[in-house]
Formats: sequence, structure tokens, C-alpha cells
Amino acid sequence: MHIIIINGPNLNLTGKREKGIYGEESFEHIIEKLSAEFTNHKIEYFQSNVEGEIINKLHEAGFSYDGIILNAGGYTHTSVAIGDAVKAIDTPVIEVHMSNIFAREEYRHKSFISEGAKGVICGFGANSYRLGIMALPG
Amino acid sequence: MHIIIINGPNLNLTGKREKGIYGEESFEHIIEKLSAEFTNHKIEYFQSNVEGEIINKLHEAGFSYDGIILNAGGYTHTSVAIGDAVKAIDTPVIEVHMSNIFAREEYRHKSFISEGAKGVICGFGANSYRLGIMALPG
Amino acid sequence: MHIIIINGPNLNLTGKREKGIYGEESFEHIIEKLSAEFTNHKIEYFQSNVEGEIINKLHEAGFSYDGIILNAGGYTHTSVAIGDAVKAIDTPVIEVHMSNIFAREEYRHKSFISEGAKGVICGFGANSYRLGIMALPG
Amino acid sequence: MHIIIINGPNLNLTGKREKGIYGEESFEHIIEKLSAEFTNHKIEYFQSNVEGEIINKLHEAGFSYDGIILNAGGYTHTSVAIGDAVKAIDTPVIEVHMSNIFAREEYRHKSFISEGAKGVICGFGANSYRLGIMALPG
Amino acid sequence: MHIIIINGPNLNLTGKREKGIYGEESFEHIIEKLSAEFTNHKIEYFQSNVEGEIINKLHEAGFSYDGIILNAGGYTHTSVAIGDAVKAIDTPVIEVHMSNIFAREEYRHKSFISEGAKGVICGFGANSYRLGIMALPG
Amino acid sequence: MHIIIINGPNLNLTGKREKGIYGEESFEHIIEKLSAEFTNHKIEYFQSNVEGEIINKLHEAGFSYDGIILNAGGYTHTSVAIGDAVKAIDTPVIEVHMSNIFAREEYRHKSFISEGAKGVICGFGANSYRLGIMALPG
Amino acid sequence: MHIIIINGPNLNLTGKREKGIYGEESFEHIIEKLSAEFTNHKIEYFQSNVEGEIINKLHEAGFSYDGIILNAGGYTHTSVAIGDAVKAIDTPVIEVHMSNIFAREEYRHKSFISEGAKGVICGFGANSYRLGIMALPG
Amino acid sequence: MHIIIINGPNLNLTGKREKGIYGEESFEHIIEKLSAEFTNHKIEYFQSNVEGEIINKLHEAGFSYDGIILNAGGYTHTSVAIGDAVKAIDTPVIEVHMSNIFAREEYRHKSFISEGAKGVICGFGANSYRLGIMALPG
Amino acid sequence: MHIIIINGPNLNLTGKREKGIYGEESFEHIIEKLSAEFTNHKIEYFQSNVEGEIINKLHEAGFSYDGIILNAGGYTHTSVAIGDAVKAIDTPVIEVHMSNIFAREEYRHKSFISEGAKGVICGFGANSYRLGIMALPG
Amino acid sequence: MHIIIINGPNLNLTGKREKGIYGEESFEHIIEKLSAEFTNHKIEYFQSNVEGEIINKLHEAGFSYDGIILNAGGYTHTSVAIGDAVKAIDTPVIEVHMSNIFAREEYRHKSFISEGAKGVICGFGANSYRLGIMALPG
Amino acid sequence: MHIIIINGPNLNLTGKREKGIYGEESFEHIIEKLSAEFTNHKIEYFQSNVEGEIINKLHEAGFSYDGIILNAGGYTHTSVAIGDAVKAIDTPVIEVHMSNIFAREEYRHKSFISEGAKGVICGFGANSYRLGIMALPG
Amino acid sequence: MHIIIINGPNLNLTGKREKGIYGEESFEHIIEKLSAEFTNHKIEYFQSNVEGEIINKLHEAGFSYDGIILNAGGYTHTSVAIGDAVKAIDTPVIEVHMSNIFAREEYRHKSFISEGAKGVICGFGANSYRLGIMALPG
Repeated sequence: MHIIIINGPNLNLTGKREKGIYGEESFEHIIEKLSAEFTNHKIEYFQSNVEGEIINKLHEAGFSYDGIILNAGGYTHTSVAIGDAVKAIDTPVIEVHMSNIFAREEYRHKSFISEGAKGVICGFGANSYRLGIMALPG
Repeated sequence: MHIIIINGPNLNLTGKREKGIYGEESFEHIIEKLSAEFTNHKIEYFQSNVEGEIINKLHEAGFSYDGIILNAGGYTHTSVAIGDAVKAIDTPVIEVHMSNIFAREEYRHKSFISEGAKGVICGFGANSYRLGIMALPG
Repeated sequence: MHIIIINGPNLNLTGKREKGIYGEESFEHIIEKLSAEFTNHKIEYFQSNVEGEIINKLHEAGFSYDGIILNAGGYTHTSVAIGDAVKAIDTPVIEVHMSNIFAREEYRHKSFISEGAKGVICGFGANSYRLGIMALPG
Repeated sequence: MHIIIINGPNLNLTGKREKGIYGEESFEHIIEKLSAEFTNHKIEYFQSNVEGEIINKLHEAGFSYDGIILNAGGYTHTSVAIGDAVKAIDTPVIEVHMSNIFAREEYRHKSFISEGAKGVICGFGANSYRLGIMALPG
Repeated sequence: MHIIIINGPNLNLTGKREKGIYGEESFEHIIEKLSAEFTNHKIEYFQSNVEGEIINKLHEAGFSYDGIILNAGGYTHTSVAIGDAVKAIDTPVIEVHMSNIFAREEYRHKSFISEGAKGVICGFGANSYRLGIMALPG
Repeated sequence: MHIIIINGPNLNLTGKREKGIYGEESFEHIIEKLSAEFTNHKIEYFQSNVEGEIINKLHEAGFSYDGIILNAGGYTHTSVAIGDAVKAIDTPVIEVHMSNIFAREEYRHKSFISEGAKGVICGFGANSYRLGIMALPG
Repeated sequence: MHIIIINGPNLNLTGKREKGIYGEESFEHIIEKLSAEFTNHKIEYFQSNVEGEIINKLHEAGFSYDGIILNAGGYTHTSVAIGDAVKAIDTPVIEVHMSNIFAREEYRHKSFISEGAKGVICGFGANSYRLGIMALPG
Repeated sequence: MHIIIINGPNLNLTGKREKGIYGEESFEHIIEKLSAEFTNHKIEYFQSNVEGEIINKLHEAGFSYDGIILNAGGYTHTSVAIGDAVKAIDTPVIEVHMSNIFAREEYRHKSFISEGAKGVICGFGANSYRLGIMALPG
Repeated sequence: MHIIIINGPNLNLTGKREKGIYGEESFEHIIEKLSAEFTNHKIEYFQSNVEGEIINKLHEAGFSYDGIILNAGGYTHTSVAIGDAVKAIDTPVIEVHMSNIFAREEYRHKSFISEGAKGVICGFGANSYRLGIMALPG
Repeated sequence: MHIIIINGPNLNLTGKREKGIYGEESFEHIIEKLSAEFTNHKIEYFQSNVEGEIINKLHEAGFSYDGIILNAGGYTHTSVAIGDAVKAIDTPVIEVHMSNIFAREEYRHKSFISEGAKGVICGFGANSYRLGIMALPG
Repeated sequence: MHIIIINGPNLNLTGKREKGIYGEESFEHIIEKLSAEFTNHKIEYFQSNVEGEIINKLHEAGFSYDGIILNAGGYTHTSVAIGDAVKAIDTPVIEVHMSNIFAREEYRHKSFISEGAKGVICGFGANSYRLGIMALPG
Repeated sequence: MHIIIINGPNLNLTGKREKGIYGEESFEHIIEKLSAEFTNHKIEYFQSNVEGEIINKLHEAGFSYDGIILNAGGYTHTSVAIGDAVKAIDTPVIEVHMSNIFAREEYRHKSFISEGAKGVICGFGANSYRLGIMALPG
């Protein structure tokens, strides 16, 4: 399977900042470990702080890849446009979050992405991504 | 008249995806037909999935063109910044939508663009753009 | 095509009152000009301040005419019953407004008619009606 | 001065029903007494249960009479259309209510008429009409 | 017993339109069958699309008839004035709806009539009227 | 027909308490009278104050009985779980209430059961149950 | 009759400030004119910017005077305590406002005083006080 | 590891009802397959339609087991009490749902359990449980 | 006096869990101390995590005991049914909470029980129960 | 212990007005009885209708007294400033109300004082104060 | 320039209480330092816990001073009356807060003063006042 | 000190458009003047209409610069992602606005940035930036 992990705004700081919430590992390291574990998958990684580039990448991957693991970060709670992109593409999308967004601020309880996603996994740190890959329809 | 049609996120997929909602024509084809019909207008076309690039284009066209037809897609419902740009420029803006946004989800009933636009046209598919051009003050 | 323009409450005062918002032309004059422009259509005109008479007229025209241009005025924002009538009939209905209702008071942003209408056009003064006729499916 | 008192729905039952709220006098009697008191005014009376007929009467009186005393009854709380009519006419409108609408159900606390009215008087039974006439600009 | 069935807006189309929701029988036929079943009752029928005419009829029947079966259609959800009329009259009013209004759009869940009605019956098609007659206090 | 009447919390006190609202008859007596009237039906009776036991009973009866008359009492307004059970079973469910819940506190106007029920009957005291049985599809 | 006019915060500036809203007359002058007109009444005047002093004055006058004309200014919309005082005393209270508070900001549409007041008069400038005195039960 | 799967109301019908949403497998079969896959875990199963029994079981398992997989069904959205229980115990709780609750009715978007849970997994049918076990801290 | 203390969900864990909020004493010990202090009262104790069993107990004690001290725990904020039971019985009910529920999460500020209770005492730990007994009408 | 009872607006009328709600005893008498009962405490009494004077008194007593019993009357529901004062001082504050504020108007259900208070006691008339003194930490 | 700093409720405790939020300096000291820094300004200081006295002082200074630095403390969020006073006077008002009110409780995010103030400065401790003086128009 | 001023969408038009709100100076000129005034600071300037580029710049400057002056324009009111970036970085951020956002449209009263910012300054035109620099902790 050909898979892409798409990370949204501020997730490039993972491992450097707010370690209490996001852990101490950098994403480069997380991706490496996932690639090592899922040897039968080709796993790509994309991160952008720009809402529209995330949409571009969803369009690009959304008709040819086998699965998308999407953590849209802060855009999760505000972006009708990313939500529309998820609904517009063919590839199944798994929404993931490192923190348990439902145990945080009220404005993080709303996701515009969930409606179009196949499912949602949150609260398990880097492990959320690993579970997301396992959740992809085989 | 010098006119620009500005399309927001996911509208680049028109004609390929969700044909039930957006029709089977690609936008390239729609623009061609509009140019053929409105021979006394010069019609440009711009599409971006990036909110800020839409603002850039509004700034660029907004002090020299004669009319802007704007379909901001999903940003319609969330972007104070595009709404501000529409209010900041001189060129009249017509807000258009292919689908009848008021017959869809609740969160699509709110537009931050309408307040600064000259008027709103929605629900007529590609024809919304044609009516938008006709609606421009002569 | 056999078309009817249905106007709701207070629109009989158009051209006499609040010219800043609604223009200086009376509706008799507007209809005359539309009839002169659209010579291949038969255009009828109906105005009433009574909610139920608008429903009666929608029922009457709604199974035999080819198009209805409806500006329900103040009933737009409060009438479930007119909205139900629009949904109950066969003839396509185009919702029009002379002013840009989305740039006015909050309570004018909600329309009970849009859901059943084919599309919505607002903000272009008398021209909204002209665009409405053009928007009717051929 | 040429004055009209316009009463909305259910006020034709005054004096017959719910005497605890509306008193025991019929409106015919109230009008008689007002005419006897204000001998320098010509006082007309109109009552209708039909929203649109109230609008018709406002249009009719609104450009030639010197004052309108309006108790729109239950339409007070729901009618954007009557509110629009009040704003569209020249004659000053005084909004009156027999009961203190602010001491009743929540949904009676909102009036669509107040915004366009010169002022509001409520809670004094038939006396509200008398005070309304006195409140008309001389 | 002297009974009147009062139907509000769009119910005159019953049997002709939206048969999936309202059934295939016309109201003339429904009334005929009810009259045949309840031979010891005199059953009258009144339908109007005009809110004020429904109020007029409630006033007329409300002090002499033995029961009123009221389906106010779309006015159910918006009319403080009809709700006031129901509270102002002596005859017991049974509120009925053919469809289960609580399984439809959010804005149909609110009724201004229920507060003054003796009870509510909805969801049983034409049978709602039959049950309404049975529910009248004997 | 094999029918069950399911009563929720506090309805076991009927006839003993709050007679102004619920009448003076005990439920044992009401059931007796219903059984005497509907001799061609087998009528069972179940009451519980426990939300989950009501669900258990709905599951048990919901695939073999011909009709369920459900008055979920206070759970009506709070129980997603009973609402889900009603939707999950085959037997048609009629929602009944002795009091007119729409003429009581605001929080009693919301029912989680109505959406899955065939219809709703409320306000007729013990007679609501009788009408509910008559409302069952034959 | 022994009457007191109680004015709340900022009304001491009347006639000096915001003449467009409140007129050009000082309150001293208004009181003089009222005293001259109502020669059979003894009219006192009290103004304070302190919420609690208004309550003190209501307590003092509320068991011996014949009428209170109360314009609580900005406290109208926020003071449960003044609303409680109005309900606690015997003397009838007429709530008045110089401006039409319902045609101003949303937060001025709510009054905590109306519920306990005999009636409400607003929008007639200094004339509101004059009408208020006339509205006192004789 | 000693693990318990706790299922709430209506989940006992899985495999028999609403197969479009919940799949065709019974829970007995799902548990069997999970036990076969996770041979190094001891997996217990508990289902109840009674809110309080779910709390009892959480108390019982919550101080001795190594992990709890909790699908509280309809109680998810209404039960402060189960949410409190989850917060009161030591064993980590993973909240799971078979359907994507965020793509369903508005009232299913709120969970009282998420705040105390370690994480949330939803939308993957029976696979949600499997992922939940994998998500337990090792 | 014959008194019963009824505790709702999770209160069986008092003294074992969340000692920061609920103190270190077990309820068995608290009851012992209360019995020792109030020697002229007979004090019973009942705890259940099942909403319906709390209702059963209220029914049982509610017509023969002299006082009920009720801490409904998490059901306080969601249970219309327990609130109804409190209103249906004769014995006075004192609502108590160990923690100050108004200084905790927003959803704990609403109580369905307060309306029917004689009074409310919260924030004093085990002492709330002691004060509750003292508050019972003698 | 050195204790002060601070009463807010309108409580000076206790015993004279609204005896149905507040009882027939004056506060002077209530204080006398409390002083007689709690002979080991020095009990002071302060009442003011002025919000700021209550704050002044809280500041004065809040760093030297052993306990404050505060009934802020109508300010309870609107005063962020008194709430801030309660949080700013050292002396423990017990919030009391004579009536059960949760069984009264919706706007009395919100308290700005509870958050900073040690606990809340309401509904027991003058007895609320007595329980409040007992609730003070020894 | 002649400037006055007006402080609202509880700010007299600055430097003594809640030092984590408000710093360790007393206001006397802060004013001294400001006077020393701004030697070309005459800086007065006024503090009151009484809403109406703050209004009195605004009226007094509002027509003769050159600038007002206003920290209305808890009244910021509730006082329509102070907001009205700020709008009624001539002297420019700068709203300041020591803490960042937008990073605190939800009810501190609303200010009735901002609308009439020239600008808002918050979050810089005593420095907010210094910046406020610098922000006064020269 | 090394400082960066970051401006969001539409602020590149400052000095050219809407001079009534934003003044007549271009930002190039404003920066020049600030650099001339604060000679001991190195002041950089960055403007972008793209939300993600603002985040990129915050990340870049947020771990090495001494202060950030951020005017996020229209993104202030909608961007959880920029708010997250502000919270994720080390450099103190001062939120500034040229206009008084609290005296404008309702949707401009909410800021997602304030929570993470050190403080907020708004309403002083270009002077807001100057005050922002002064507000930076030295």
C-alpha cells in the first residue's frame, strides 16, 4: 500500500516544543519508526503550515494513493475547505490527533474533517499515527 | 470590460468530482464558453486553494479591473480576511456559487463575503458565473 | 415560456419609497421593460401583502407555468408556509431580492425559501428580476 | 389631526374574553370614549386578523394621516413584513399594547415593530391607546 | 357533537403532492370517510392558506362548536397569533399533524399552538384526524 | 394483535400522586379498562424506573409483538439510549404522554423518542394510551 | 397625588450632552414644566448614578408615595437588584425611557425592571415622563 | 494483560440489526476473533443496557485490570455519571465507537467520556475494538 | 425522626478515590459519625449507581420517612426522572453535594433536583450531610 | 470566632415584605436569635443596597474576621466585582440565600459568588444563615 | 496635560493580594513612579468600589481634563452605565487592564467600555497604565 | 533588542485604502519612523496575506528574536492555527490592532491570539505598534 501522512500547522515543532502534550520525538524519527514497522507499505510524509497546500496535497494524493493519515492541527477546527477536500477525493482518510482534543479547549471539540473521514483516532501521541495506518481498509 | 473570475478551494476539481453537485464540465471548458459568449469582455481566470493567494489576487485586480466574479468555495464561510479584502478594493465583486449553499449544511449558510459584495448569485451551476458577468454594473 | 413574477409585502411601494434601497422605478415600469426585453416569454405580475395569497398564487401557477420569480419580501425570513409551498409545487422557483439581504440586519440573513428554490439572486435592484428570468432552466 | 387606531389579531375579542388581561370593555366602547375625549382629532378604527391587511391599511394611511396607533397583537413578535411597512411609511407610528408584554412569555419580549415606531407604550390596558394619542407629535 | 376540522397552508394539496409524506387521498375524501364513521357528529371542514382567516374561523367556531381539530400546517411553527386565538376561545382544540413533525426539520419541532391545545396527535397521516375526533372530551 | 404498554419512571405513582396532572386512576385500573375495551388485542403492561430495563423490554418485545405503546416519562427528554432502542427494533412504537408535555417546562419539549416513533399522542390523560392503541397500524 | 421621578445614571447630563438622542432641555427645566402642568400633583425629583441609592430611594418612596416614574438608565438592562426593589414595594412604578430603547443596541432590549413595573413608555423624549404621570392609576 | 470490553445500550443487538451501520457480525463472534488474535491478553466481555451497571463494572475492573475498552453507546452523549466513573478509576480507558459518531446527528458529537479517557477511536466497525486494544499502554 | 441519606453514582468510592475533592473518609465512617451525633434520629443509608434504583428508593421512603438527604452525584445534572420523583413525593428532600458544584465544570452548574428540593447545601465535604440533617424541618 | 453577616440589596425589607418568600421575621430579630444561639461567636451584621459598599465591607472584614456569611441578594447574579472581592480576601465566605434560588427565575440560577465561596446554602429561610455559621471551618 | 487614572473595584488591594496576577507594588507607589516619569503631565488618581462614584468622577473629569485612564475592574464586564458615561463625555478615555483579560475566564472577554474608549491596553501589569498615558492623543 | 513586526492580511494596503480607519501613512513609512525612534532596537518587518506564512515566520522568529509585534488582521478572529503558533514559541508576542476591534463588528470581538499573547493593544492607529514595542519586556 502507498500511504501518505499529512500534518498541518505547528506539527513541524513536534519533539522540540510542548513536550508535555506532544512527546519528545521529532516527526522525522516517528516516520522512520513507522516505515521500519510497516515494511509492506510505502509511507510518505508531508507537513505544511499553509491550509491551501494541505488541500493541494490531498488533491494530489487523493486519487492515486491507498490511504491518507491526516492530522490537520489547528485547521481541524476551522477549515471548511479542508473538510470539503476530504469529501472530494477517493482515497480513504483517517483523521488522527496526538492529544485527546476532546479533553482540551471547547473550540477543539469541533472538527470539520470528521464528517468526510473514515474514522477518528486521538489521544495516543505518536501511536495515533501507527493505529491510523492499521485502521486503513486493507 | 476587463473581468476576472476567481475560484477558491476545491473548485479545480470541478467536472472531475461530485458531478451530482457541480456538473460534468471542467472549468477550462466553462471559461472558454464564457469567453465565446462575452466577446466584448476580456475574461481572466484564477484558481487557488490558498486563502492568502486569493487575497493577493483580489488586491492585484481590485484597483484596475472592471469586475470580479468570486467563488471563494469553503473559505466563503470562514474567512474574515477575504471578506476584508473584498471591502478594501474598488472593483465591484459579485459573489457566486454553483450549488445553492442555503439548501446545504447549516455552516454553509453564513458568508463573510456577502457584506462587501455587490450581490450574490447561487444555485445555477456554471450558469451562476454567466449571470454574475451579466450582473456587473455596465 | 410562461413566467410569473410574484412580489411579497411592501414591494408595491417600490419607486415611491426608500429609493436609496429600492431605486426610483415603479414595478409597473420594471415589468414593462422586462416584457420588452424578453419577447419570447409571457411575463405575468402578481403582488400581495397577504402571506396566504402568495401561497394561493404559488399553488395556482406552480403546476402549469414554466417559471416563477419570487421575491417574498419580509415573509422570506419568517414564513415556513411559503417555504413549504415552494417545495410542494412543480414549477422551478428563483428567489430574488433587490437589496443584498446579507449586507443588512441579521434577521434578514435567514431565508425559509432558499431551501426549496432552484437558486438565489440578490443585490442587483430591478436587475435581480432580469437575471432571475435568465436563470430559469430553458 | 386625522388619526387611525390599527388593531391586530384577536383584539376583536377584547371585552369578551380574557378579561383579566384585557379588561371588560369592548373596543367599540373604547373608541367612543377616545373620540369623546379627543374632540379635536378625527379618530378612525381598523381591526384585522390578517397580517397583509394590516400592511395594506398602513400603506393606505401612511402617507396622508397624521398619526397611527398600532397594536399588532401576536404579529408584533413575528412579522418582519409589518415592521418593514412601519419603516416604509411617512406617518408617525406609536406602538401600543394593553398588557405589559415584558412581564409575559419570553417570546413576547421581541418586537419587530419597535425599531420603526416613534415610541412604545404598554401595560395600561385601554389607557395605552389614550396615552398613544397624547404621544403623537403635535 | 358539532365539530370543525381546520386545515392550514398547503394542506389543500394533500393527495396531489408529496404523497410519500401526506398520502394519496384528497382531503375531500378523508372528510367523507370521517363523516361516514362518526355518524353522531356533525363534521365541518375549513381550509385556508391565510393565517388571519384561520384566526377568523377559530373565533367563529370557538364559542359555539363542541370541538376543533386544528392542523395549522407551516403556521404551527411561526404563528403567535393563531396560538393566541386558540387560548382565547372556549371550544377545546386538538392539534393534529399528518407527518411526525418531530422526525423532520428542527424548525418544525416548535409549536406555538400546543400550549393552548388540549393535546397533540401527529404522525398517523389521515388517521391523525380520526384520532383527534376520538380525543375530544365527550 | 399482541401489544405491550411500557411505562417509564414515576408512572407507577399514577392515581396516587399529582392527581391534578395525571388523574385519579391507578394504572392497574387503566389497563383493566383497556383490556375490556380492546378484546381482540392481548395487552401486556410493563413499568420500570430503570432506563436500561426499559431498553431490555423494548429489545424483548421489539421483534415479536405487534405494537408498543411507550411513555418513557422523564427519560423521554434525556435518553439517547432509549431513542436508539426504538430505532433498532421492528415493532412500531407509539409515543404517548398523559400530560401535554408541550404546555409544560421548556426541557420537556424535547423528545429523543419521537424521531424513531411512528407518531406522538399527548395531553389526553389515560385516554392517550387508548388512542395510542387505535393508532397502531392494523 | 404625591409622585417621584427617579432618574438613573448619566441622566444628570441631559440637555448638556448627546442632544440628538436626549434633547436640549436640562432636567431641572423638564421638572419645572411638569410641575406647572400637573398642578394637582406634588412632583419630586431624584437622580443618582449609584445603583444602591436608587434602591434606597425606591424603598423610601415605595410605601408612602402614590406613584413612581422610574428611568433607571443603563441599570435597566443589568440590575436584578433594582428589579427586585420594584417588585418589593407597594407604590406603582412606571418605567420610562427618553429614547426608544428597542431601536438601539441589542443589549438595551432587555429590561429587568419591566416585569415588576405597571407599564413601559419609551421613545418620546421628555414627553415620556409626562405620559408616565398620566399613566399612573388615578 | 487483563482487559475488559464494556459495551453499553443496544450493542447487544449488533449483527442482528442495522447492519448497514454496525456490520453483520454478532459481538460473541467479534470477541472470539479478538481473543484469537491477542493470545497474550485475557479479554473479558461485559454488556449492559443499564447505565448504573456499567458504572458498577467500571468500579469493579477499574482498580485491578490493565485496560478497559469502553463503548458506552447512547450513554456516551448524556451520562455525566459514567464520565465521572471513568475519571475516578485507575485503569486506563479507551473510548471506542463502531460508527463515526462525528458524521452522525449533532447530539452524538458530544461525549462526556472523552475527557477522562486516554483516547478515542471511532468509525472502524468491529475494528475499532481491535485498535483500542492495540492503543492500550503496554 | 426517620431519615435516609441517598447517595448516587460513584459516591461509593468516597474515601478511596479523589481524596483532594471528596476527603479521606469512607461513607460507612461518615454515617457512623452522623448517627452518633444525631442520637434522636434514625439514620438509614442507601447508595446506588443505578438511576432507577434511586427513584425506587425515593418512592419507597417518600411517603413515610421524615426527611431525605439526597446527593444524586452525576445524575444531578442530567436526570429529569429523579427530579420528577423528588417532586412527586411527600417527604422533604434536601439536596447536598460534597464539592462546591458551582466552582467546577459548567455542566455541573445545572441541577434538575433543586427545583423540587427544599434547599441546597454544597461545598462542605462530609459536613454538607450534617448540615442537611440540621436543615430538615423539625 | 469573629463573624460578620453581610446582606445585599432589598434584604433590609425582610419581615416587612413578601413574607411568603422571606418569612415574617425582621433581620434585627434574626441576628438577635443567632447571637443568643452562638454565644461563643461574636456576630456582626451589615446590610447595604450599594454594590460597592458590600465590596468595601468584604475588604474590611476579609483580612481579620474568622468567617463571612454573605447573601448578596440580586447582586449575586450580576456582580463580577463582588465575586472578585470574595476571591481576593482571606476570610472564608459562605454564600447563603433565604429562598431556593434554583427554584426561581432562570436568571437567579447563575451566581458569580459561588466560585470563590467555600460553599453554598439556600432555601431554608433565616435558617440558611444559622446553617452557614455552622458550616464555617472551626 | 491634566490626566486622571480611575480605578474600579478591588484595585485598591493591588500589591497586597493576588500578587501572581497583579504584581507586588501598591498603587500609591505606581502613581508616584508615573508622576516622576511624566513630569509634563499632572496625574491625579481616583479609586472606588462603587459603580456610581466612578460614573460621577467620569462626569466630573470628562469635560475639563485632557485624558482619562480607566480600569473599571469587574464593572468592565457588566456595566452598561459606565459604558454610557464613557460615551457621554468629551475627554478621551483609554481602557486599561493589568492582566490579559482575554486569557482569563470567558465572562471577562466582554467589555462594555471598549466601544466608547479610544483604545484598549491590557496584560502588562502596572505598565498598562504607563502605556495608556503614552497612548493619549497629544 | 531584535524585534519583528508581523502584519497579516490586507495590512499591505494601509495608507492607500480606508484611510478613515487605518490612516494615510503607508507601512513602509511607519516602519521607518519606528526604526528612527527606537535606535537601540533592530526592527524587522514582515507582511503576508497567507495564514501559513505567518505561522512559518512565527516559528522562525519565535526562538531567537526578543519580541514579536503581531497584527494578524482578519486571521485574528478565525485562526486557531496562528493562536497555537503563538503559544508554541518562546519569544513574547504583543497583539496589536490599529482600529479598536471591540468597537467594530461582533465577529471582531473574538481573538484566538490573545490567550497566548503577553498583552493586547488596540485602537491607536500606527501608534499601537509603537506602544507595542514599548510594552515588550526589557
